[in-house]
Amino acid sequence: MVKVGLIGLGTVGQGVVRLLTERRDLLARRLGTELVLKKAAEIDPERRRISPLEPERLTSRAQDILDDPDIDIVVELIGGTDTARELVLEAISRGRHVVTANKALLALHGNEVLAAAAQKGVEVAFEAAVCGGVPLLLALRQGLAANRIQEIFGILNGTANYILTQMSEKGASFAQALAEAQAQGYAEADPTLDVEGIDTAHKLAILVSLAYCAPLNLDPISVSGISNLDPLDLQLAREFGYSMKLLAITRNDGNMIEARVHPTLIPRDHMLANVSGAFNAVYLTGDAVGPILLYGQGAGMMPTASAVVSDILDLARNLIHGVKRRVPPLGCDAALESPRTIKPLDEVVTNYYIRFAALDRPGVLSQISGILGKHQISIAAVIQKGREVKGAVPIVMITHEAKEANARQALREIDQLPVVSPPAVFYRIEDPHLHAAQI
Amino acid sequence: MVKVGLIGLGTVGQGVVRLLTERRDLLARRLGTELVLKKAAEIDPERRRISPLEPERLTSRAQDILDDPDIDIVVELIGGTDTARELVLEAISRGRHVVTANKALLALHGNEVLAAAAQKGVEVAFEAAVCGGVPLLLALRQGLAANRIQEIFGILNGTANYILTQMSEKGASFAQALAEAQAQGYAEADPTLDVEGIDTAHKLAILVSLAYCAPLNLDPISVSGISNLDPLDLQLAREFGYSMKLLAITRNDGNMIEARVHPTLIPRDHMLANVSGAFNAVYLTGDAVGPILLYGQGAGMMPTASAVVSDILDLARNLIHGVKRRVPPLGCDAALESPRTIKPLDEVVTNYYIRFAALDRPGVLSQISGILGKHQISIAAVIQKGREVKGAVPIVMITHEAKEANARQALREIDQLPVVSPPAVFYRIEDPHLHAAQI
Repeated sequence: MVKVGLIGLGTVGQGVVRLLTERRDLLARRLGTELVLKKAAEIDPERRRISPLEPERLTSRAQDILDDPDIDIVVELIGGTDTARELVLEAISRGRHVVTANKALLALHGNEVLAAAAQKGVEVAFEAAVCGGVPLLLALRQGLAANRIQEIFGILNGTANYILTQMSEKGASFAQALAEAQAQGYAEADPTLDVEGIDTAHKLAILVSLAYCAPLNLDPISVSGISNLDPLDLQLAREFGYSMKLLAITRNDGNMIEARVHPTLIPRDHMLANVSGAFNAVYLTGDAVGPILLYGQGAGMMPTASAVVSDILDLARNLIHGVKRRVPPLGCDAALESPRTIKPLDEVVTNYYIRFAALDRPGVLSQISGILGKHQISIAAVIQKGREVKGAVPIVMITHEAKEANARQALREIDQLPVVSPPAVFYRIEDPHLHAAQI
Repeated sequence: MVKVGLIGLGTVGQGVVRLLTERRDLLARRLGTELVLKKAAEIDPERRRISPLEPERLTSRAQDILDDPDIDIVVELIGGTDTARELVLEAISRGRHVVTANKALLALHGNEVLAAAAQKGVEVAFEAAVCGGVPLLLALRQGLAANRIQEIFGILNGTANYILTQMSEKGASFAQALAEAQAQGYAEADPTLDVEGIDTAHKLAILVSLAYCAPLNLDPISVSGISNLDPLDLQLAREFGYSMKLLAITRNDGNMIEARVHPTLIPRDHMLANVSGAFNAVYLTGDAVGPILLYGQGAGMMPTASAVVSDILDLARNLIHGVKRRVPPLGCDAALESPRTIKPLDEVVTNYYIRFAALDRPGVLSQISGILGKHQISIAAVIQKGREVKGAVPIVMITHEAKEANARQALREIDQLPVVSPPAVFYRIEDPHLHAAQI
């Protein structure tokens, strides 16, 4: 028999209670022994009241879970980073195995937590932290272990993807789409973490570590969100055959790792372009396996609980068989001692969508393309639309591959031109088929 | 150090040699110890000659692998069922762990092999047998272990999918598309296993076992392939908003399991409808996680080798940690003693696409719909096209849900009508949104 203690009866915690109590038979058949939810701690009396657990299995104090010598596996589901960090570190120091769904905790304090676990010889499992119920970390750590991961593109935040889908399909503004997402329960009252790309960056930090066997490192990941998006750009992008998605991107160029989160144009026939609403998906390329797509619900009560319980089962199997740390948490031995350099955003080479507001058409195109050319940026396609937006006419250019620093410098210079109304708007494009010059 | 012996240096075997020799460092970092390819057996001298392995690591006799007391893990990659069965059973009887990519072996002799392995206390791993490099079995066995699997739709054969894509996109006949697939190396000289759905059924038998913790059972799976498809039906299906895919389908209705392989119409906006060319994909629904899609290359040298090596790593981890059979091969304890009843095809309830060749239009529709109505089959949509095909005019009906036995009986009666040219053509539809009656 393996005994589990649960800290936090919020949405995901309630889902875990349901799975552990309602399908004890299935879990016992999978495990070969019983998996018992010994106790759950929840500070909110209302949440305790509505829990189906008997009063003797409920407590208001997380410490009661940590103090119970019977409990083999502690499941942290309170979220946040400060209290969660303390609880997880204490559970580890007391020799408990830990399951968490807390991506912020891992992105900010993951190295500390994993080092403590390594020293104590216990396990920390966190499948639910990225892509909810989709078994993505299992795939990276084990299923694709023979591969060098070349690149990963991820739609990792369902709230942002829901908002982008609304903006794209209905022409809604960001504010309208956010309000709709909040009304539907897909966005929180304070949506900052989701719409500014921060939650996506937390998850990307975890993916980078697992893909490249490296310590967790949030700081060098460049992040921009979707709150400033103009629906006009989604519409114009579509005319070039692109969809806009908030992507987490990591790529191994052999020496350095790219790691960035930003709204990205991808071809409309790309598998990720069809991922709509609150779904998550990851499109990754391994050098042996080629491209792989994993798709599913990245959040929500039962999908996230599904991943948490799969981690509990995994740790329980190890307990039963008397084996510890059979698979390194970051996919390789000594990953915490193998830092990887993240390429500065300025060095990244990609294609760009650039929209200028032209005040005075004659001569504009030659002045703009002159400055772009000076910075080694060549143009693959142009649309110049008749419609006026605030007295100016939008000109959109799709560029060939250019270095980010050059693109930014060129835009700064173009914004000084008297014939354009600054600032120019630009988005990065990920399109493997973009090459033939059209101008 | 863990030592591997390989039997078979065909395409996949060569890929495994490449991964095991070219990335020893990565694999050692993942494993914490070295993984060594001790010896490879191949009967064909030409294949031995082109192998990068030194002569002392090559042998013509599979028996040399089995006789080598140093070898911990035997990898069977010769394909076929008779010799492979003997070799695998002998490896097991000698206490070796086994990795195989052989879906036919598993579908036909899997219970015998797994029972022998259980008795001997060794492991048999077979991730590569379904969906090549896509870590699907890992997901079913572990990542989604908290779920009751409700249904699985799989595009499991790249050859058939390539042919269907050609037929659909180019209007090619089956024969033309097959010739193109053979020219491109996607189809073998004898394509029977692929195009008649047999290979897909082998893989479905494995998925059914893993999804429902049951013994392998190929016999009750009903199978029809794509060799009789008329491009006209792909085109007409498209007019109703459907794509045609060769699907493996399994569904748990609570009491019985559906398990069938046949060309199937799915909505064109379904994720599986966008899986084109030689790719594989599985769309499955777990009761906790909801819908999940896994997509990637289902065959080929390196994708399949990627899965084989992930299995080798998994078994090697168990060897290093001194643990055996940590995860049951079919996902649950005692799965071999838990047979599940497969629902007879006649009892399956689904929607149908039916095409009649009407010789004489007035009165045809009322006669046909009269017979359908008598068998409790109601019509959701009809297209009656002006174009003649061999003197007859095609009428296509989409039905509401009906029992297979009723549909077949109705078609037998309709084929007797003097106003139609038999036989009527029918395909099953999987469309969750099909309801509102239009007639």
